[in-house]
Amino acid sequence: MKLYYSPPSPFARKVIVAAYELGLIDRIALEKVAVTPVSQNDVVAAANPLAKVPTLVLDDGQAVFDSRLIVDYLDTLTDRSLAPREGPARWRALTELAQADGLLDAALLARYETMMRPQPLRWDEWTQGQLGKVRRALDAFEGSERRAGDDLGIADIGVACGLGYLDFRFPGEAWRDGRPRLTAFYETISQRPSWVATDPNG
Amino acid sequence: MKLYYSPPSPFARKVIVAAYELGLIDRIALEKVAVTPVSQNDVVAAANPLAKVPTLVLDDGQAVFDSRLIVDYLDTLTDRSLAPREGPARWRALTELAQADGLLDAALLARYETMMRPQPLRWDEWTQGQLGKVRRALDAFEGSERRAGDDLGIADIGVACGLGYLDFRFPGEAWRDGRPRLTAFYETISQRPSWVATDPNG
Repeated sequence: MKLYYSPPSPFARKVIVAAYELGLIDRIALEKVAVTPVSQNDVVAAANPLAKVPTLVLDDGQAVFDSRLIVDYLDTLTDRSLAPREGPARWRALTELAQADGLLDAALLARYETMMRPQPLRWDEWTQGQLGKVRRALDAFEGSERRAGDDLGIADIGVACGLGYLDFRFPGEAWRDGRPRLTAFYETISQRPSWVATDPNG
Repeated sequence: MKLYYSPPSPFARKVIVAAYELGLIDRIALEKVAVTPVSQNDVVAAANPLAKVPTLVLDDGQAVFDSRLIVDYLDTLTDRSLAPREGPARWRALTELAQADGLLDAALLARYETMMRPQPLRWDEWTQGQLGKVRRALDAFEGSERRAGDDLGIADIGVACGLGYLDFRFPGEAWRDGRPRLTAFYETISQRPSWVATDPNG
């Protein structure tokens, strides 16, 4: 399998962390690429018309994306499972993952608005609307049960990718303030080899 | 079950069309709401901190979102199945669905840019970047096998929601030009009762 990724992408990090935790990382050839919403990458676009990372390409040439589907696919390849296979626990875990992905979508849109878009064209209401989604999701996660040990699940990885991205791109956001449980969770999970190996600053 | 939706949302339409096709529509209470990225809706935010539609709330109070997870959930409730349950066919179908969702994400971002954002703050490169994703996805779908009869699948519904949204919000896009197979597919699927019942102009 080949994975198109870029080191700063939190969605790519989610996939790579999951691959580490499932013991699959050695089966994946990591191919580093650069993509932005305003500059097409032809190599990635040939596999995925949306030209986004992460995009996985299987050995038979079939592409699998987006990040959520890639982790769902990887999760079927081993006995260890990052998401409950069925029942209410599955929908609860995958809704939490969707919430973490939504936090990241909003954070990325805020990042594009405040860093990529030419300064005179920025719209503060848009940024604040997106950051509102980020903060409400953080508050919801603060009230949830998280796991940072060997029993961690895909939603835990998603939440950690959200927190790590805020540290990486929004250091002024101070997400730890008033959120002691998330702070402790992140402190623990960020010591895992899968986390250290995927540090975007590394 | 209760579904928060808004009639113009193509992601909500996808869920409702799937519910019709699965014979589940009578089990879902449709609750119409208004949401935009810059105006929080407290009712929706109470169930989903991202404050997005569609959001499904189960009878026990558990929320299920986003749209992709909702259709995946609904698909487990009946014998009729909109996605292959396993194997390569599943990953192919769900990647096509992710591609249709990505087309819609890009179209919505282009719509927000050109209609919601104050005129002096618009950035044409952003709009063109998003529309590039839309057009490459359309070209990829033109080369794919689609079904518009009783054997239609979740990716077909996703593609139709993309085409319907372009007709609804981007009438100048002329997506039919040079895409005869998608044109014929849409002509057929848009006569289905599930489609007529969810017309955003209706």
